[in-house]
Amino acid sequence: MSKTLFILNGPNLDRLGRREPHIYGHHTLDDVRAMCAARTDALGWRLEFRQTAFEGEMVRFIHDAIDGGHGIVINPAGLTTTSVSVMDALKMFDGPKIELHISNVHARETVYHKSLMSAVVTAVMAGFGVHGYALAVDWMAHRLQPG
Amino acid sequence: MSKTLFILNGPNLDRLGRREPHIYGHHTLDDVRAMCAARTDALGWRLEFRQTAFEGEMVRFIHDAIDGGHGIVINPAGLTTTSVSVMDALKMFDGPKIELHISNVHARETVYHKSLMSAVVTAVMAGFGVHGYALAVDWMAHRLQPG
Amino acid sequence: MSKTLFILNGPNLDRLGRREPHIYGHHTLDDVRAMCAARTDALGWRLEFRQTAFEGEMVRFIHDAIDGGHGIVINPAGLTTTSVSVMDALKMFDGPKIELHISNVHARETVYHKSLMSAVVTAVMAGFGVHGYALAVDWMAHRLQPG
Amino acid sequence: MSKTLFILNGPNLDRLGRREPHIYGHHTLDDVRAMCAARTDALGWRLEFRQTAFEGEMVRFIHDAIDGGHGIVINPAGLTTTSVSVMDALKMFDGPKIELHISNVHARETVYHKSLMSAVVTAVMAGFGVHGYALAVDWMAHRLQPG
Amino acid sequence: MSKTLFILNGPNLDRLGRREPHIYGHHTLDDVRAMCAARTDALGWRLEFRQTAFEGEMVRFIHDAIDGGHGIVINPAGLTTTSVSVMDALKMFDGPKIELHISNVHARETVYHKSLMSAVVTAVMAGFGVHGYALAVDWMAHRLQPG
Amino acid sequence: MSKTLFILNGPNLDRLGRREPHIYGHHTLDDVRAMCAARTDALGWRLEFRQTAFEGEMVRFIHDAIDGGHGIVINPAGLTTTSVSVMDALKMFDGPKIELHISNVHARETVYHKSLMSAVVTAVMAGFGVHGYALAVDWMAHRLQPG
Amino acid sequence: MSKTLFILNGPNLDRLGRREPHIYGHHTLDDVRAMCAARTDALGWRLEFRQTAFEGEMVRFIHDAIDGGHGIVINPAGLTTTSVSVMDALKMFDGPKIELHISNVHARETVYHKSLMSAVVTAVMAGFGVHGYALAVDWMAHRLQPG
Amino acid sequence: MSKTLFILNGPNLDRLGRREPHIYGHHTLDDVRAMCAARTDALGWRLEFRQTAFEGEMVRFIHDAIDGGHGIVINPAGLTTTSVSVMDALKMFDGPKIELHISNVHARETVYHKSLMSAVVTAVMAGFGVHGYALAVDWMAHRLQPG
Amino acid sequence: MSKTLFILNGPNLDRLGRREPHIYGHHTLDDVRAMCAARTDALGWRLEFRQTAFEGEMVRFIHDAIDGGHGIVINPAGLTTTSVSVMDALKMFDGPKIELHISNVHARETVYHKSLMSAVVTAVMAGFGVHGYALAVDWMAHRLQPG
Amino acid sequence: MSKTLFILNGPNLDRLGRREPHIYGHHTLDDVRAMCAARTDALGWRLEFRQTAFEGEMVRFIHDAIDGGHGIVINPAGLTTTSVSVMDALKMFDGPKIELHISNVHARETVYHKSLMSAVVTAVMAGFGVHGYALAVDWMAHRLQPG
Amino acid sequence: MSKTLFILNGPNLDRLGRREPHIYGHHTLDDVRAMCAARTDALGWRLEFRQTAFEGEMVRFIHDAIDGGHGIVINPAGLTTTSVSVMDALKMFDGPKIELHISNVHARETVYHKSLMSAVVTAVMAGFGVHGYALAVDWMAHRLQPG
Amino acid sequence: MSKTLFILNGPNLDRLGRREPHIYGHHTLDDVRAMCAARTDALGWRLEFRQTAFEGEMVRFIHDAIDGGHGIVINPAGLTTTSVSVMDALKMFDGPKIELHISNVHARETVYHKSLMSAVVTAVMAGFGVHGYALAVDWMAHRLQPG
Repeated sequence: MSKTLFILNGPNLDRLGRREPHIYGHHTLDDVRAMCAARTDALGWRLEFRQTAFEGEMVRFIHDAIDGGHGIVINPAGLTTTSVSVMDALKMFDGPKIELHISNVHARETVYHKSLMSAVVTAVMAGFGVHGYALAVDWMAHRLQPG
Repeated sequence: MSKTLFILNGPNLDRLGRREPHIYGHHTLDDVRAMCAARTDALGWRLEFRQTAFEGEMVRFIHDAIDGGHGIVINPAGLTTTSVSVMDALKMFDGPKIELHISNVHARETVYHKSLMSAVVTAVMAGFGVHGYALAVDWMAHRLQPG
Repeated sequence: MSKTLFILNGPNLDRLGRREPHIYGHHTLDDVRAMCAARTDALGWRLEFRQTAFEGEMVRFIHDAIDGGHGIVINPAGLTTTSVSVMDALKMFDGPKIELHISNVHARETVYHKSLMSAVVTAVMAGFGVHGYALAVDWMAHRLQPG
Repeated sequence: MSKTLFILNGPNLDRLGRREPHIYGHHTLDDVRAMCAARTDALGWRLEFRQTAFEGEMVRFIHDAIDGGHGIVINPAGLTTTSVSVMDALKMFDGPKIELHISNVHARETVYHKSLMSAVVTAVMAGFGVHGYALAVDWMAHRLQPG
Repeated sequence: MSKTLFILNGPNLDRLGRREPHIYGHHTLDDVRAMCAARTDALGWRLEFRQTAFEGEMVRFIHDAIDGGHGIVINPAGLTTTSVSVMDALKMFDGPKIELHISNVHARETVYHKSLMSAVVTAVMAGFGVHGYALAVDWMAHRLQPG
Repeated sequence: MSKTLFILNGPNLDRLGRREPHIYGHHTLDDVRAMCAARTDALGWRLEFRQTAFEGEMVRFIHDAIDGGHGIVINPAGLTTTSVSVMDALKMFDGPKIELHISNVHARETVYHKSLMSAVVTAVMAGFGVHGYALAVDWMAHRLQPG
Repeated sequence: MSKTLFILNGPNLDRLGRREPHIYGHHTLDDVRAMCAARTDALGWRLEFRQTAFEGEMVRFIHDAIDGGHGIVINPAGLTTTSVSVMDALKMFDGPKIELHISNVHARETVYHKSLMSAVVTAVMAGFGVHGYALAVDWMAHRLQPG
Repeated sequence: MSKTLFILNGPNLDRLGRREPHIYGHHTLDDVRAMCAARTDALGWRLEFRQTAFEGEMVRFIHDAIDGGHGIVINPAGLTTTSVSVMDALKMFDGPKIELHISNVHARETVYHKSLMSAVVTAVMAGFGVHGYALAVDWMAHRLQPG
Repeated sequence: MSKTLFILNGPNLDRLGRREPHIYGHHTLDDVRAMCAARTDALGWRLEFRQTAFEGEMVRFIHDAIDGGHGIVINPAGLTTTSVSVMDALKMFDGPKIELHISNVHARETVYHKSLMSAVVTAVMAGFGVHGYALAVDWMAHRLQPG
Repeated sequence: MSKTLFILNGPNLDRLGRREPHIYGHHTLDDVRAMCAARTDALGWRLEFRQTAFEGEMVRFIHDAIDGGHGIVINPAGLTTTSVSVMDALKMFDGPKIELHISNVHARETVYHKSLMSAVVTAVMAGFGVHGYALAVDWMAHRLQPG
Repeated sequence: MSKTLFILNGPNLDRLGRREPHIYGHHTLDDVRAMCAARTDALGWRLEFRQTAFEGEMVRFIHDAIDGGHGIVINPAGLTTTSVSVMDALKMFDGPKIELHISNVHARETVYHKSLMSAVVTAVMAGFGVHGYALAVDWMAHRLQPG
Repeated sequence: MSKTLFILNGPNLDRLGRREPHIYGHHTLDDVRAMCAARTDALGWRLEFRQTAFEGEMVRFIHDAIDGGHGIVINPAGLTTTSVSVMDALKMFDGPKIELHISNVHARETVYHKSLMSAVVTAVMAGFGVHGYALAVDWMAHRLQPG
């Protein structure tokens, strides 16, 4: 049975590939989307891959996922440590939800260390580069379609 | 003489009634609006009842109230602990202003405890359920129309 | 069916009307009692309106409420931030309980900000002046006599 | 040679048996008194078993013990974390003194964790239920009447 | 013109002379009263010299001073660091008020360092032994009767 | 050779001149724009002078500057202490960037003291009033067009 | 019916009797073992009395208790404030478990104050000297063999 | 070309399947080893899968990996927040290294939140259950054998 | 027998009378010197009354007192909260030493609250205005010449 | 009408040009003096440009400015975070006063972040290099000679 | 008369020479042992030079030193900031004891700054490279064999 | 080839031998100078051995060392924890620099624990008594004249 997976990206991720490439690598967000779509297509799933710099829009994306999604992978970027509103929205989602960071935030400046999201998601990953998105989709397949 | 009352609601409150009902109850935001309108109609007042998930839009709502409102009741939700911009906007409003929370935020996770708004409003209430909105309107009547 | 409402006032509130009137207003505690009694009389309820400067006596008042009261409105005043004993007593009361402050404590010195009571009561209000007592009784009526 | 043992109980302990029985158990303070008296009677000791909700009275109880007691077992309850006055009084007592808590305060809310008394008593016990009083009397016998 | 001076003493000060004499000296509280009375008699003033272990009673003493006193010298002892209620009462007193400690509290355990009273009194003194009371009365004479 | 200078203004700065004029003065944001334009016109530079209450839009403004600007002067207002997303965007800009505050934020409430931006900009100025914008443009001229 | 009681001792306790005897007394660990064995023999219980300086070995001792013990008395010594692994192991044990310290750790250097164990055990005792072991066995008898 | 992968497990993980199964699930550590071995066998890699409750032994395991391994996956368990020695050893390993936690430690007690390891590893994952081990091996394949 | 009293004044006290007179009053430092000299003359004592803005010079003043003084009254002013060197010098002085502040530093900005000196002096006084110097000399007379 | 401007430089600034030139640049303090003098000469003002490594001397410089200056630009260098005495002196100066740092202190080690001066000056600037002195003089001209 | 000197090395020091040589240098632990042995041989002393990665074993080494050693030089490495057990063992040793770090730990990450050992040893040295061991032996000679 | 070694001593060290001899010993600073001179004479080096109570003078001493010295040994005494100016000066010195304390500061009051200097020097030593100076010169010989 088909599933819908939301992959949500926060502020500045539209600059991926150009932004501090020594930290984030050279792949663009479109590359990431393609990599994820290849996997969800193979699973016969629908992929909602989105990006926004607006906290309010991110809240709405999560509302959409609550209404019609089976899993969420979220890279909250700059909203990670500050947005109680995104945290509140994520709390309302009952399915599996992964917080993903491309770089290892724990090895960077302390301002990036504390996540408001971590306590309300199912799992957290950081530092796997853009390949982390692939691992996240794989785990969603394992979790939502265990057969 | 007629007054205009702004009742402003922050992120995720559009999900009221469906969001963690053991905490927030089963009334929707439309129910709350109707309850407030009944009271402001009886007073012959104009009601501006709004909701937004965007900090920037909430700032504008408050600017509107500064330009044409006599009182503000604000449930800042996820913006409560984080938005200096909303706090700055509220500071500029000279009339009575109430910060309202449906649940008793002090009895929940510590991330909800510290409000940036409390120091710049007239009064604060938390934990009275959606009926708190009714109390807030009653107090505005007492304050703005003491006769 | 008749209810008994306890309204309990802490240290220095017997000086109301004379104590820092720019903060607390000019009504005396007797004025407040009268205002509350008018409301409880209209409801056909019994009112226990008390004041004490002794933590030990406040604990006993709450024990009385546990034995024969249906709701508690408490203005703990100077006991707010320090009395674990009053907090422990309030925990034992199963009915609705409101923590009330006449002034907006959050807009004052930091020593007044942290309340031990807030986490164990049903609801909290601060800054509504002595009229807050009226709102508290109204809400008790709504809660205990919803019909 | 006969000894006088003071067992002093703080605020709310007069509600024992009715107060949060899942934490404190179903024995009343009279049950505890009887259990202790059985032991002190067997030792031929005098027992001063008291309770108060007043910090000032607790200070006086300790003054009495200073004047005529050989050991103190104190369950300071809500005074534990806040009363410098009780701490100052305990400091003046030269004999063995035990701080006793019925529940394991360290496994509860953080507000109960820090005791002002612990640094000035001989020994501390918490979590042994009301049977802890029996252990405390036994240890006093061992200490005061080693023969 | 005659003045009334309140000298108020907190918990455990009735044990003065017997309590940790290496810290507090060998004079009793009666000795102190006599030393003060000699001075106020010479000034033709009335002396209200009191002691209590009860926070509630201390609050009342200060209320008495508000109603009929010209100056307060308070040694809050164990209430120093904890009693918001005594602090609130002192705030209401408009005349000169001295916080006095017999020992140098700053050279002792940290629990004695922070005073809630210091910010609301006129002046603070610590470490002058019981002779500090004499200095306090002298300063009151200087202040209230400058002629 | 011509340069493009971005001057970016955060939430509530559209109220300049009306907002707490004892702190921010009586000039409007249009006055500031004109003052800056006079200077950039004289330099033969293009001026991008913008304002927004939306964090997401501020992020986009900075993206625009990354794509086509030579210098940034940013008055982040309410976003100063909270927006990691704006900080992340500023990090990506390689040219000179000034953080500007009209009032001396260090002399105000502590909530305004800590800036997330200061560590990632070239220089910081606060308290020079709206004339600070003029100083900022002058310094940009010195830096970008040193000849 | 017979029970097996584990009494586990942490680093440096093999030096008991020689280590800071003004704090820990002159009894050796063998003396303590004998005192405990006398009590467990009388109860018809098996005693596993062990000591180790290795965190890893202490974890294994607790695993042994999980597999075949009915109660644990643990004096974690230097592991008290630091070993999450011992805490994790203790969490897995379902029976009654006592944390015991010979000296009153709360009256010593602050490094000894915070125990990781206290929140996961049934009860805590400190300052009763080596006789505390006897009290602990007595309480185990009361708890496990109440008849 | 063949690689050697070290998968290192800390204290109490030998109890997997029996330890708090609502948190850690019902698979044993042998199940995990088998799952990992299936993957490394398919890659033609050597697997060093080890467990220890001793910090000193964990340090040696990492020394072994430095001498002959290409990647490390470590679940430090109770050593996560406390072992500077393990952190120092990990620092010396130049290849890719993953810190793995079966449960989402960020959603548990604060004592589990701070990891000493996170700042010195390549990537971190938590909350993926035992399937996280599979993801970790997959990522190692992607990283070490990218072809 | 004659004594030598050192009265030492720190930075900015040479501006006394002109510096923030609403806080410090209108007397100059010469006025204070005269007031003190009148008293020491009456006692037949030698007065060393000095002022400096240099920490190094203040240290030397204290060395002088160690070599030839019987008492020190020090108003460290801006050195109060920061100079470990002055604290170290004061420690070496064996006679009675008073720390004096003209204003009640505890009622001012927090930067003035913490004194490094308080723990190493005999007594502390603050808020008695320049008359505090008189009280200090009186107490020195009481202490050094008790007859 | 002519003005006198004080430009005061703290410890180590006499090494400018040689001290960490990657941070402070290659201009010497004499270069800076010349640059400032050119500007004050053009204004017809008197310039007092001074440097000292002594806190006490800096205090005196500020006293001089109080007696005969119209504006102060101070680069307190190592005194910034530690000198309450300099802060106290600056407080007494009624004219405009700028705190200036050559480097962006907020982007450096945390020991440089907190300034005692910022709360008592008119404006603060950091990171503009030695050209910041020019901006400071320009602003003084704007402020003191607005015509 | 001959002495026995214990030189104890903690976790990872067996990798000396290979571990981060830019920090620790290129000498191996065997080089260090030889350098120390040359000195103790010259003194006619016995040298116990040991290394371990196990806290429990380090505790035993110190017990050995208590039983038969005259001085301890300890480089606790990763145990420095965490091992209360090693600290407790060191406390028991009555002779001179030096805490030695090869690198200047104060100039490195904050996790290395706080030592539990420093308060219980005689002296501390850090940053002298492996030559610090030589200084330590020299000082032991000076201390133990002063002649 | 000859070297110049600066040995710099901070406030109160001119009292060595008389200052708290139970902590600092009975040698005077002249004794220390002689001990150091014997060693530098043997090396054929020039010794600059100085003492000051003035931070500004200490800064100048270090400037002298920058201009003509090869090594610095500094005992900053009371300047250790407070002088950013001395720290800034030390940063500028490129040669080897040792921070030396006669007593073990870590075993004393916490005010002595945190050194501003430690992060910018080469090495730190504390607790070796005045003999530490000898060790420091020896290490300088080893470092500057390795042959």
